[in-house]
Amino acid sequence: MSEVIEQLAARLGALEDREAIRALVAAYGPLADAGDAQAVADLWCEDGVYEVSGFARAQGRAEIAALIDGPTHRALMATGCAHLLGPVSITLQGNRATARGHSIVFRHEDGRFAAHRVSANCWTLIRTGLGEHGGWQVLHRANALLDGTEAAQALLSFTPPQPAS
Amino acid sequence: MSEVIEQLAARLGALEDREAIRALVAAYGPLADAGDAQAVADLWCEDGVYEVSGFARAQGRAEIAALIDGPTHRALMATGCAHLLGPVSITLQGNRATARGHSIVFRHEDGRFAAHRVSANCWTLIRTGLGEHGGWQVLHRANALLDGTEAAQALLSFTPPQPAS
Amino acid sequence: MSEVIEQLAARLGALEDREAIRALVAAYGPLADAGDAQAVADLWCEDGVYEVSGFARAQGRAEIAALIDGPTHRALMATGCAHLLGPVSITLQGNRATARGHSIVFRHEDGRFAAHRVSANCWTLIRTGLGEHGGWQVLHRANALLDGTEAAQALLSFTPPQPAS
Repeated sequence: MSEVIEQLAARLGALEDREAIRALVAAYGPLADAGDAQAVADLWCEDGVYEVSGFARAQGRAEIAALIDGPTHRALMATGCAHLLGPVSITLQGNRATARGHSIVFRHEDGRFAAHRVSANCWTLIRTGLGEHGGWQVLHRANALLDGTEAAQALLSFTPPQPAS
Repeated sequence: MSEVIEQLAARLGALEDREAIRALVAAYGPLADAGDAQAVADLWCEDGVYEVSGFARAQGRAEIAALIDGPTHRALMATGCAHLLGPVSITLQGNRATARGHSIVFRHEDGRFAAHRVSANCWTLIRTGLGEHGGWQVLHRANALLDGTEAAQALLSFTPPQPAS
Repeated sequence: MSEVIEQLAARLGALEDREAIRALVAAYGPLADAGDAQAVADLWCEDGVYEVSGFARAQGRAEIAALIDGPTHRALMATGCAHLLGPVSITLQGNRATARGHSIVFRHEDGRFAAHRVSANCWTLIRTGLGEHGGWQVLHRANALLDGTEAAQALLSFTPPQPAS
């Protein structure tokens, strides 16, 4: 393979990685609101962690699926909810990446919708091999309410990647 | 064209398709809030359908444009509104694709904003040929309030595509 | 470089440009909510403008950083806030681009979250050379409350780019 083609392939690969990570994060909300516990859990790697500050820490797919199948989430679904995740700010570093962004849980109550939880999220993702989403999976997702606490704000803080020299 | 280049072109084409579909969906909210009825309608294919559960079913560009020009939408615009569509989870299948995600209609009333509608959306898209957005157009958009009804939740449910074997 | 490869490189470049612009806009909210004034300002080009209708007009990185370090933004952060920016509708024109979309500022008050500002945004971006985000930077961001005023709606209005003939 010529050098020109190798360079094109590398640039294409970087775009594919970002697209896969974006798709992975974008799948969470629809799957959660559909109540598809197994598909949600499968976004994580086998021993991945989902940490919701002040609410739960689930490790491994069985525990993550149990959050979606659990009474809190099912009660939300029964009256109506939407897990809206905004676009993420992605930083790629080889086989590891971070993605930062907001999530809003809207809740339907008394015929109206309210923003029930407004949170900061920091996703750590790893490339685990072949498979869906280009092999990318969630290693860790930290979520914390943006209620003025510095810990939540810190999840959104990052030093942007330096340009290649 | 060598096999290597053909493979690169195919990978690039898949990214372009996802980008075109994302752009198509991302254009809806701004165009709707600008009141540009014809541009909204042109996102759909000629006999495309826009189905808003419990409110309207429009088929064809003239009917879709009439929704944007109609009294309900114009009243929303007059007092202030935002049609925020979240990122979509895209599944490509050749010349057809689906995109799932949330939409929130914010309404301005008495000097405050409220989440007026919080909905699930399932878009079915087709590649119709050359033209804007890589030839992709909306064949069908289903929208339903996430008020606890299973029909709305089902719009967000999907079996993720299997990895190529 | 053969013509086939040149065409692939051009298509790849267009995707990279859109990805860079998307990443630039997606970085704003997390950085603002983390209070990282310098990193926010660095999204703009040196003499770039951030115009918030009815609130402020900042020109140049020092003034933009001062908005994030200023009392209004710091008060929001202290009680809790989220600057959620939706997906943007991007129009590329060589070394210049526009991106249109919504932003929602959620505010935490009395243990609840409310949509404090719901705005239209029109970003004008330019390619300034090498560097982060493929050299893309913000030349101008206009933001206006979607409270029924036509000026805000006009920020979201655009003629979609014509397909290549």
